[in-house]
Amino acid sequence: MTRHSAVPPPVTAVLDASSRWLPAGLGRVEEMLREQGHGYGDLLAADAGMTLEAGGKRLRPLLVLICAGEGGEEVAPRAACAIELIHMATLVHDDVLDDAPLRRGKPTVAASSGRDRATATGDLLFSRAFALLARHGDLRSIELLSRASVALARGELTQRQDAYDTSVTEERYLERCRLKTGTLFECACLLGCDDEELGRFGAEIGLAFQLLDDVLDVSGPPERTGKARGTDLLDGTVTLPLILAIGDDPQIGAADLRSLDPPAAEALCDRIAATGSLERVRTRALEMVATAKRRLGSTSLDPERCKLLDLVADGVVQRYG
Amino acid sequence: MTRHSAVPPPVTAVLDASSRWLPAGLGRVEEMLREQGHGYGDLLAADAGMTLEAGGKRLRPLLVLICAGEGGEEVAPRAACAIELIHMATLVHDDVLDDAPLRRGKPTVAASSGRDRATATGDLLFSRAFALLARHGDLRSIELLSRASVALARGELTQRQDAYDTSVTEERYLERCRLKTGTLFECACLLGCDDEELGRFGAEIGLAFQLLDDVLDVSGPPERTGKARGTDLLDGTVTLPLILAIGDDPQIGAADLRSLDPPAAEALCDRIAATGSLERVRTRALEMVATAKRRLGSTSLDPERCKLLDLVADGVVQRYG
Repeated sequence: MTRHSAVPPPVTAVLDASSRWLPAGLGRVEEMLREQGHGYGDLLAADAGMTLEAGGKRLRPLLVLICAGEGGEEVAPRAACAIELIHMATLVHDDVLDDAPLRRGKPTVAASSGRDRATATGDLLFSRAFALLARHGDLRSIELLSRASVALARGELTQRQDAYDTSVTEERYLERCRLKTGTLFECACLLGCDDEELGRFGAEIGLAFQLLDDVLDVSGPPERTGKARGTDLLDGTVTLPLILAIGDDPQIGAADLRSLDPPAAEALCDRIAATGSLERVRTRALEMVATAKRRLGSTSLDPERCKLLDLVADGVVQRYG
Repeated sequence: MTRHSAVPPPVTAVLDASSRWLPAGLGRVEEMLREQGHGYGDLLAADAGMTLEAGGKRLRPLLVLICAGEGGEEVAPRAACAIELIHMATLVHDDVLDDAPLRRGKPTVAASSGRDRATATGDLLFSRAFALLARHGDLRSIELLSRASVALARGELTQRQDAYDTSVTEERYLERCRLKTGTLFECACLLGCDDEELGRFGAEIGLAFQLLDDVLDVSGPPERTGKARGTDLLDGTVTLPLILAIGDDPQIGAADLRSLDPPAAEALCDRIAATGSLERVRTRALEMVATAKRRLGSTSLDPERCKLLDLVADGVVQRYG
């Protein structure tokens, strides 16, 4: 038996610190996500339902709800549900492309139902997000989310075009992370509240989140990350830990990523770690989070919500503490 | 050198019969589609641009424009562009799943840039469609198109779930075709004009289009279809010509589709054709088109536009004449 959507610790900390409206909103989002997996007849729900119930940190919905605050009872949970659907769609497609066996320690849709059904499932989740918002006339949300989706796809395309290229620059890597991850965090904040400073907060913690995720791929341990070390290397995805390590030890850059097998990828992870690049990337990410947190004082949010966003930012970091 | 977007004969017949506004509108759509392939920096446009310029019959944009008529100068071309983007996104993803080497006689994005870039390209086209409509506040179009996209993905999912299953019923096949093809033709008409009878016209010619497409996969010839005969059989896609043939010759149903190679698939095509099922499917499709055409008199459209839709309906049939 699978236990569904256990709330992860960073989210718990945020919920504990908030008054009633936030857990209520998040409960509504979970309910909406479950509804998305049904109403397609018998068999059809299987693949989509599996993805929706696999849980996750729900960081993006949390950002929407906090930024919207106590007032946004109907609109905010819907936008939160939609952004999570888009996020899930990209995860499902990513897993198809990476032939990933596991996500969050469970079989991916691609692994359990096949690449073809997983691709269709991703498309379905994607379409549902826009259909949900359109049905209720949430034009502003659609505009924000469709723009973010374009950025996501561009980021994905850049990543695939740059695959196996160890000469990728730090700037290009950062731009790709902004497109792939930063934009959706930024979008989450803006969906909740039309405040550009909040958008910048979101973009920064999103970027930090991606950097730390890339550290984790090299550092593991697999029992905490739910996937093998060096998965990015095996996919040919050149990330900042590798880019910085190459700067220190040019021999690392001479490695042919296309010829790596899992043990060789783990060995390369060790070499990358030995240069100290993981610590430098981590420091960089922590600085970004600190900058983002300082920004909160200049937003239009009340102290309770600033505190909650502060905790979300901590959550991004704590996973890797 | 590739010659881009030569206008196919059925479209020419429609354009010839119309006054100035329709070619002008279609020109605007082509322009918008070209714009979609640019503005992403140097390399990024490559994959998406390739798809957009590969041409096609532009049947869905044509339906939008005709149904909208002379008045809808800005809104209709935008909706027409968006629906073509969605259609293209599904083609690109389909080609990934089918490992298809050719479409319209040219290499698919999947074949030329790899599965991974093709998946991201499909996602990008999809996102751009909604971003384009959202930027201009076309909420009604977004609602129609997102609902149609959900149906498309459901149809795709059904097809993949039913793969290799020769016990699929005619009803289930028809429902899948309605989801996969009928809905987008219906949506095209409704995008142009809010008239349910027009929507039904679109759904019917779309369904006929799919039936005839499935005939063509069995009958070929490859030099006209741009792909090998029996491609559906090799993918495990059970279509009406096969379903009817099994009714006549149960031995055909005993064939193991999973074990087919291209010559065996061609041989199975011959056996299917020998039952006369192709003719029966073709007759069925022609009846659907005739029903759809009779419907035009009960729509809100003026005689010029009814005539143009009549020609589009003929175009659906003529390809296979």
